[in-house]
Amino acid sequence: MVSRIVEVDPFDIVVFGATGDLSRRKLIPALYHRDHAGQVPADARIFGTARRHMTNEEFVADAKKCVLDHVKATDIETASLDRFLARLAYVGTDATSAEGWDDLSAALGRDEERVRVYYLATAPELFGPICERLASHGLVTSNARLVVEKPIGKNLESAHQVNDQIGKYFPEERVYRIDHYLGKETVQNLMALRFANALFEPLWNSAHIDHVQITVAETLGVESRAGYYDTAGALRDMVQNHILQLLCLVAMEPPTSLGADAVRDEKLKVLKSLKPVDEANVDLLTVRGQYKAGASAGGAVAGYLEELGKPSSETETFVALKAEINNWRWAGVPFYLRTGKRLASRVSEIVVAFRHIPHSVFDGGAGPISNNRLVIRLQPDEGVRLWLMIKDPGPGGMRLQYVPLDMSFAEAFGVRNPDAYERLIMDVVRGNQTLFMRRDEVEAAWTWVDPILEAWKSRREPPKPYVSGTWGPSAAVALIERDGRTWHEDDA
Amino acid sequence: MVSRIVEVDPFDIVVFGATGDLSRRKLIPALYHRDHAGQVPADARIFGTARRHMTNEEFVADAKKCVLDHVKATDIETASLDRFLARLAYVGTDATSAEGWDDLSAALGRDEERVRVYYLATAPELFGPICERLASHGLVTSNARLVVEKPIGKNLESAHQVNDQIGKYFPEERVYRIDHYLGKETVQNLMALRFANALFEPLWNSAHIDHVQITVAETLGVESRAGYYDTAGALRDMVQNHILQLLCLVAMEPPTSLGADAVRDEKLKVLKSLKPVDEANVDLLTVRGQYKAGASAGGAVAGYLEELGKPSSETETFVALKAEINNWRWAGVPFYLRTGKRLASRVSEIVVAFRHIPHSVFDGGAGPISNNRLVIRLQPDEGVRLWLMIKDPGPGGMRLQYVPLDMSFAEAFGVRNPDAYERLIMDVVRGNQTLFMRRDEVEAAWTWVDPILEAWKSRREPPKPYVSGTWGPSAAVALIERDGRTWHEDDA
Repeated sequence: MVSRIVEVDPFDIVVFGATGDLSRRKLIPALYHRDHAGQVPADARIFGTARRHMTNEEFVADAKKCVLDHVKATDIETASLDRFLARLAYVGTDATSAEGWDDLSAALGRDEERVRVYYLATAPELFGPICERLASHGLVTSNARLVVEKPIGKNLESAHQVNDQIGKYFPEERVYRIDHYLGKETVQNLMALRFANALFEPLWNSAHIDHVQITVAETLGVESRAGYYDTAGALRDMVQNHILQLLCLVAMEPPTSLGADAVRDEKLKVLKSLKPVDEANVDLLTVRGQYKAGASAGGAVAGYLEELGKPSSETETFVALKAEINNWRWAGVPFYLRTGKRLASRVSEIVVAFRHIPHSVFDGGAGPISNNRLVIRLQPDEGVRLWLMIKDPGPGGMRLQYVPLDMSFAEAFGVRNPDAYERLIMDVVRGNQTLFMRRDEVEAAWTWVDPILEAWKSRREPPKPYVSGTWGPSAAVALIERDGRTWHEDDA
Repeated sequence: MVSRIVEVDPFDIVVFGATGDLSRRKLIPALYHRDHAGQVPADARIFGTARRHMTNEEFVADAKKCVLDHVKATDIETASLDRFLARLAYVGTDATSAEGWDDLSAALGRDEERVRVYYLATAPELFGPICERLASHGLVTSNARLVVEKPIGKNLESAHQVNDQIGKYFPEERVYRIDHYLGKETVQNLMALRFANALFEPLWNSAHIDHVQITVAETLGVESRAGYYDTAGALRDMVQNHILQLLCLVAMEPPTSLGADAVRDEKLKVLKSLKPVDEANVDLLTVRGQYKAGASAGGAVAGYLEELGKPSSETETFVALKAEINNWRWAGVPFYLRTGKRLASRVSEIVVAFRHIPHSVFDGGAGPISNNRLVIRLQPDEGVRLWLMIKDPGPGGMRLQYVPLDMSFAEAFGVRNPDAYERLIMDVVRGNQTLFMRRDEVEAAWTWVDPILEAWKSRREPPKPYVSGTWGPSAAVALIERDGRTWHEDDA
C-alpha cells in the first residue's frame, strides 16, 4: 500500500545542537525518511548548527553516517540519500556570544514569508539566549517557528521563566513544545478509534470503565546521564510530560475539532481536574523507588548510586501513582501511572480496563470470563488491541476464550510506522500545533506535580530500593492490589 | 487446536424418512462427524426407518455413499467409517399401518432409561401418525425425545393441530423443534459476544443502533420442490421460522442463563412485541416478489411459473419486510428482513448497523466516516465481523479507513466449523433444548405471520416479478431507501 504524501510548503530547518545525540539519532534520520518518501520540497534546506567548528563536508559525512546507522537498509536509496545530503549545510554558532550569527543569517537569506523552523535540540538553559540572538539578527521572521524539547523547567516557577524567555520573541502560536509520545502512530489511532466510531465514546466513562493504567517502563539505567538525572527524577522526567499527556488524550472530552486549540483546551481541562496530591495523601497515592544492582538483558548491572558515584541520593528512578480526575466522566475511575528505569521489560502502554459483565448467563463449563481491555501500545511495538471474549471456535460446546483483537491493522497492511519525529517535524512545517503542548498545559502539569515533589521532600522518606530487572518496589504492586486490581501484563 | 468433546450418555437414534434427502445429505454425515470426533459412545446405535423395503446391507451401503459424498476426504478415516457403519441398522415401517412396528420395537429393546431420539425427517402430516404408533408400541419411554423439522403447520390453526398431535404423546420438555439456523457456530458466537463482553450490551438498543438487517438469500430456484413450495411461499418457508428466530436472538433481553426456558422466554417476549402488520399497513411494510426467467451462476434459468408448470400463481418466492419491535429497547429501530430464491448471491447474514457518530472532529482530508456495523454471517461462510473506522496506517496524516475486524477468529484457529445438525443432534442427546423452538414460540410466530398472509390475500395484488439473478423487485430497495438506508452489501 502506498501512503499518501501531504504536500508542504518549501522550508528551511535549522537544528541547534546538530552534533548532539537527539539530532544524530532522531532528527537527521527523520528528515531523511520524509525526503525519501517525497514529502520534502525540492528547495528545502537543512542547516545544522552548534558551537563546534566543523566544515560542511564533515557535517555531511556525519549526517550520512547517522542515516546509515539509524535507517533500515531497505529504506536507503542512493538517489534519495544524495538528494538529502545535498540539502545539508553546517554553520557554527555560539548561543552565548555573537560568533557565527551573521553567517547563519547570510546562509538563511532574507525571505520573510518562507517557513523557517528553529529546532532547539540543546540544553534548556540555551533556549532564552538562542531566541534572543535569533531576534537580534532579524531571524524571527513572520513564518519562523520555534521547536523546543523537554524539560520545560523543573518546576512551575522555572517553567514560567523558560516560557517567558521564549514568549518574548516567539508568539505562542509559533512555539512547538515537542513531546514525541504524541507523534506516535498509536496515539493518532486512539483518536481515530475514539472519535470516528460510535462504539467507544458511549462506554468511555465511569459507568463502563473500571480503571486505566499507563506504564512507561525502561530496561536501561541512567548510565552516563546520571549527573543530569539526579537533578530530575522519574516524576519530572516522565510523568510531568509524557505520561500526563497520554492521560489527557485518554481522558479528554471530545473536542469540537482536531484543531490545535480545541484539543489543547480539552487536555488542559483534564490537567486542571486532577485531584491534588499533597502531604496528606502522598503515601497512599504514590510510591517512589530507586534501583539497586541486579540483572538486565541477561547481564549484571550496577545500581543507581554506583552509576551516580555518590553514597546516597533521594532521586527516584521509579514512580507509581494513583491519579484521579475530578469530573463527571471519570469520578471514581483511578488512573494508575507507573514509570521507571531498569525495569523487567521495555514497554509503554495504556490499558483501558472495562468493567466486568454484571452477570454471567454461561454455566461453569464456559470457563472464566475476563473483562474487556483496550491496550494501546507505544513501545516496543506500536498497536491497539481489544481483548474480548469469544466463543472458542469449533464444535466443543459453548466454551469461551479471551483473545486480543488487532485494532490497528498495521501488521495486516505491512506499512512502516513512521517515527514520531517524522510526523512532528512535518507538523511544524505545516503549522499544525495539535500534537504540541501549549504553555498553559505545561504549567498546569507542573501545578499538579510540584506539590508531590514538595510532599516527598517534607516526608523525608527515601525512595524504596528495587532490584534492577524487576517491576519496581513491591509497594507499587500493593498500590494497585489493595484496590483489588492488578498491573496488566500482556505477555501473561 | 484440538476441540473439546462433551461426553454424552449412550443413546439410540431412529431416523424416520431415512431414505430421504435431509437424512442422506445432513443427518447421516453429521452422525459420522460426531462419531469420528469421538463423541458417540461405544454402544450407541443408529436405526434408519422408512416405508421402503431395504436390507441392512443396502442401507449401510447407501449410508457409506452419503458419507463419502458429503464429508471432506480429509475427515474420512477407514477405522472411523467402519465403526460408524457398524452402528447402523434398517427397519422398514409404515406410519399409516401396523407394518414393521413390532420389528422396530424388538430392535430397540426394552431399556426404559436409555436415551432414545426419534428424528422425524418426514412429511409433517406423518408426525401425528408416527407419534401414535410409537406410543401404542410402548416406544415412548421416559427418556425418549422427539425431533421434528419444519414446517410446523402452515398457519396458526394448523400449527396448533400439529403441536396437539405431538403433545398427546410427548411432553413439551422432550419435543425438539429443530431450526438448523440456531445450530450454527455464528449464532453461538453472537451469544458469546453479546453476553460475555461488557462492550456490546450497553450499546444494544435504540440509542446506539440505527437499524438491523436480516438477509437470507438463495441463488437456487424451487426446481423440483415447486409443488410443495407453491402451497407455502417465502414468508412461511423462511420468515416464520429461520428469520424470526434470528431476529429473536438479536433482539432478546439478556436471559438469566442460557438454560432452555430462560432463553425461550426471552425470545417469546420478542415475538409477542412485534408490531402487527395488517391490511392497513401491509403495502408500506412488505414487498412480495416472484422470479421470472433470468441468469444464475452464469447460465440461463427458468422462471417460477415455468418450473411450476402453471400459467399463474400468487405465491411469493421473495419477501422483504420492515418489522418493528414495540418495547423500550427497540422502539424506533427497524428490522429489515428479506429472503428469496434466485437472488444475486447466496448469503445469510444479520447486520447490526450502529448510529452514525453525532459529530465529526476530523477535517475533510480524513475522508468519509461510515457507521459501525456488526455483520454476523451464516452463509456461505460463517463469521462475525465488526466494521469500524481506523487510522490509515502509516505516515500519510490523519486519514481514516473503514475496515472489517474478524471477531470470530475461526480463520485464525483453522478449526472446522461443525455443521449445525451435528451440534443440534448432540444437544438432543444431551437433553439441551436451548436451541430448539418451544411450542409457544412457533405459535407466536404464526400469530404475527397469519395477518400478513391474510392482508396479502385480501389486497389481491400479485407478487411483483423480478428477474432471476437480481436482488428481488425494486420495491424491496425502495422499502429501505425511503427510510434513508441501504441494504448492506459486504462485497461492495
